[in-house]
Amino acid sequence: MSDSTSTRDENSLTTEKMAERAKKASWTLASLNTEARNRALEEVLTVLQEQKESILASNREDIEASERDELAAPLRKRLDLSGDKYEVILEGLRDLIQLPDPVGHVDYAVRLDDGLELRRVSCPIGVLGIIFESRPDAAVQIATLSIKSGNAVLLKGGREAAKSNLALVNAIREGLKRAGVPEDAVQNLASREEAQGLLSLDHLVDLIIPRGSNELVQSIQESTRIPVLGHADGICSVYIDQQADLEKAISITVDAKTQYPAVCNAAETLLVHSTVLESHLPAIAKALQEAGVTLRCDERAITQVDGAETATDEDWKTEFLDLTIAVKVIDSIQEAIEHINTFGSGHTDAIVTEDPQAQETFQALVDSAGVFHNASTRFADGFRFGFGAEVGVSTCKTHARGPVGLEGLVIYKYRLNGNGHRVDDFGPGKKAYLHEPMDK
Amino acid sequence: MSDSTSTRDENSLTTEKMAERAKKASWTLASLNTEARNRALEEVLTVLQEQKESILASNREDIEASERDELAAPLRKRLDLSGDKYEVILEGLRDLIQLPDPVGHVDYAVRLDDGLELRRVSCPIGVLGIIFESRPDAAVQIATLSIKSGNAVLLKGGREAAKSNLALVNAIREGLKRAGVPEDAVQNLASREEAQGLLSLDHLVDLIIPRGSNELVQSIQESTRIPVLGHADGICSVYIDQQADLEKAISITVDAKTQYPAVCNAAETLLVHSTVLESHLPAIAKALQEAGVTLRCDERAITQVDGAETATDEDWKTEFLDLTIAVKVIDSIQEAIEHINTFGSGHTDAIVTEDPQAQETFQALVDSAGVFHNASTRFADGFRFGFGAEVGVSTCKTHARGPVGLEGLVIYKYRLNGNGHRVDDFGPGKKAYLHEPMDK
Repeated sequence: MSDSTSTRDENSLTTEKMAERAKKASWTLASLNTEARNRALEEVLTVLQEQKESILASNREDIEASERDELAAPLRKRLDLSGDKYEVILEGLRDLIQLPDPVGHVDYAVRLDDGLELRRVSCPIGVLGIIFESRPDAAVQIATLSIKSGNAVLLKGGREAAKSNLALVNAIREGLKRAGVPEDAVQNLASREEAQGLLSLDHLVDLIIPRGSNELVQSIQESTRIPVLGHADGICSVYIDQQADLEKAISITVDAKTQYPAVCNAAETLLVHSTVLESHLPAIAKALQEAGVTLRCDERAITQVDGAETATDEDWKTEFLDLTIAVKVIDSIQEAIEHINTFGSGHTDAIVTEDPQAQETFQALVDSAGVFHNASTRFADGFRFGFGAEVGVSTCKTHARGPVGLEGLVIYKYRLNGNGHRVDDFGPGKKAYLHEPMDK
Repeated sequence: MSDSTSTRDENSLTTEKMAERAKKASWTLASLNTEARNRALEEVLTVLQEQKESILASNREDIEASERDELAAPLRKRLDLSGDKYEVILEGLRDLIQLPDPVGHVDYAVRLDDGLELRRVSCPIGVLGIIFESRPDAAVQIATLSIKSGNAVLLKGGREAAKSNLALVNAIREGLKRAGVPEDAVQNLASREEAQGLLSLDHLVDLIIPRGSNELVQSIQESTRIPVLGHADGICSVYIDQQADLEKAISITVDAKTQYPAVCNAAETLLVHSTVLESHLPAIAKALQEAGVTLRCDERAITQVDGAETATDEDWKTEFLDLTIAVKVIDSIQEAIEHINTFGSGHTDAIVTEDPQAQETFQALVDSAGVFHNASTRFADGFRFGFGAEVGVSTCKTHARGPVGLEGLVIYKYRLNGNGHRVDDFGPGKKAYLHEPMDK
């Protein structure tokens, strides 16, 4: 901490003041009940409706600037809030208000002694730092997820969306103000320096959530000691087992690779058991190629695939994010599992098999957030999983893993209620702890 | 990650190889069922019984060296495994074997579609790095907690206990070997350089658990990007509310301060509401002084306490760990809460009051792992809480907070079982997700 203090410049000191205000606002937020937090979200919804035109005007300024700066077309498209996009944002907020409150759940309750009751109760984490790229709708989504879960949030969006983000955050703050909730629960960081400052504030910021490119996430993971919830790479594999059904193998592989190739839960690697190399790979490859996919094959796989490219070792750890897949032949399920645990990113991996033993081995031993059997990796998604809202997908090994819903934004505290109880009254020759389960 | 790679020296490369072996062992451990892991612990118990004499001989070498090096008497005492201590270790291991398995619990189960079933199942985290000081019994406790929860572990103990730790780890490895479990699931790091290397291996080590002084924990937190489960300071407060019962105030404050002053859940700060300053503080102070406690009082408190010292601002953030307490008078419960949230360490804080409103406000707004009402802060402990075993106490805001039991050593994975299901079959005009709850 001493290091980061000494290197903090004026900008990050400003960020520190903002984070201190966020921390204080988080204490108030934590005291609001479900109704009060939902009422604040209702006010935010109203203001977003009222200010639609002025927010879209700010958005147009960003779009015009992006045209002058000749930003790539997909980036410009993601920037644009006009048309249906704005209504989708409002609809998402209405859905969020209806979701169950993640705060206040009791998941452990024991009586330690007469009149001494212990309860573990879910509560907000505190202050979240969110760093995201381009899409200004992410600002609304994340700020409102934070309010719903009782957390304060510092938002840093992309430079291209600066005016849109500011307008949206100001509207959200106006909604909070109308509901009597401290506006500092949601604050906008404008500059890159402020974002850098944010990453050094490990005494004030409890969790960083990056949303954007692999490069963004990785650079954040490497420059902060604050816990980071998210994922850099999404290197997902589909493994075609010895006892794979051919039709399932084809449809799952094609869905996993082509249904939306640019996202983290799309497959990047196809592993094929050597015993089904000749029976299965040609048909799978043909279906992939018909969908426009390029196959990069190892030396055994390439013998079965016309028009394939030769795979290099680099391909096993590459997230192509487009219509390319690396294909490797393995000789045992153990080899498949070891390949995935070594080269994968712990995101989502699937086995295609009719053998219950192979399925169980794969699902037990593959060390990924999602381990699927006879289903496409593309199902790894908070909405599909039934969470209602998604904070992001995490490849962390602690706190929250896989698609993260509102639950990922809460932790718990232990409430112990007694009647003057002293530890000194317990022990050998004194009272014993009861540890009686209670209703939660 | 590039930074840490470039600074890795030869020692840490050795550590990296050990961590790679631990990672592979962790995959095997993760595949063992409850019985197999308990059988391994039974073998460990047998070997620890068989090798008792040689382990105690190694321990005597450490003790003799510590006498030559003139280590402080309390440190030497903590080093000593003779007498009852060794039996206590074995007894702890017998208890651990009896505890419920934290692995394999399903806490979310929904049917997404006919034949498409999603389950969230608890599983081991992977590879734990444990850095602890002096007490060699911690080596056994932590290694066996790791095996019970299916994790591999790299242990780095204090230099003073080097021979004891090595003998204990070798006995544990012999037990694993007899049970057919990879010995590399438990490995001993001998040198300080190996421990430093461990902290840079964020691609192989999933969680660091430090057990020792504040300085140790803080220096580890500052030198790794691996999640750290633990606490540096334990600055716990007792707040005497306007409506505090005097007898409860006295007994809770005395218990919290004096029952075991050297531990993290002992009280370091006493906050007194100004309306009960004259009615309550003199009697509380007298009871504390009779127990040998020195009171460091602010300017209002000192008027009520004979023989008190004057508090400085530094005292509000000091963990005395002995018979000293800082005393501050505040004018509202809000001021008490803000003091605790600003100067406390998020460990455990208590309110003494008969007012349900004040109790609720305090328990909702104090942002600590333990928020207690009319009970001593000393109850913050895994065994007292009924966890059976304690990994440590965490002041983290993510993953695990407060006293951490075996649950803190597991995460979860999503198992999705289908029948050839494709994402492309769902959506507007296609199939809808069912999201039907299933039996867990």
